[in-house]
Amino acid sequence: MKNDEQIKPEDLSCAEKLQAMGDSLYVIGGKWKLRVIIALSQGHSRFNDLQRTITGISGKVLSGELKELELNGLVKRKVQAGTIPVIVEYELTPYSQTLKDVVYGLIKWGVLHREKIKSEGKLSNV
Amino acid sequence: MKNDEQIKPEDLSCAEKLQAMGDSLYVIGGKWKLRVIIALSQGHSRFNDLQRTITGISGKVLSGELKELELNGLVKRKVQAGTIPVIVEYELTPYSQTLKDVVYGLIKWGVLHREKIKSEGKLSNV
Repeated sequence: MKNDEQIKPEDLSCAEKLQAMGDSLYVIGGKWKLRVIIALSQGHSRFNDLQRTITGISGKVLSGELKELELNGLVKRKVQAGTIPVIVEYELTPYSQTLKDVVYGLIKWGVLHREKIKSEGKLSNV
Repeated sequence: MKNDEQIKPEDLSCAEKLQAMGDSLYVIGGKWKLRVIIALSQGHSRFNDLQRTITGISGKVLSGELKELELNGLVKRKVQAGTIPVIVEYELTPYSQTLKDVVYGLIKWGVLHREKIKSEGKLSNV
């Protein structure tokens, strides 16, 4: 398996770039997955806590997103044995660390874009 | 306006990180926008050429995505005057360059993830 440093996007063809982007979006695209990853990275590990933290997400959607993230090796579901009621916690896997640049890049761009819009006076009440 | 270097995601609170991610996804999220940006960055500038390049996108969706990208200052629509039929070309704006790290990050991760799945033997016919 190549490591991150060996992958040079600029050397890929247009079709390869599009395919790689498609692969990424397939796994972490959509409205919620990267938010779930952020909330988990900030220490929110219980289902109800995650749902409270990620404004607007329904229980059903959160449950589905956690399952898909688990299926893709990004999240681990931990059940603490011997407690009543059973305590379920979610945590990020070591593999999820490979997403750090992507997550930080998108956060940085979100801040940058909000600043741009503010400076252009287009954002009054957000 | 802050520049990119002044934004330190690690200094933001969880809520600020989630908001910034939300802002990014609002503008460049979804299935197609980043693919359109990649195709434009690779020199595909005419509508039909873009549609051919981005497998699976319908004309209606492509048209909508281009309009939204234009509205957000990422794409510029250029009409060449005096030609019959009128030639319309799309190009990335200088502002779209601020997305370079995000786009490359997602491409790199897509390649990495495909390699991981291949190495685990889960991907036989893709």
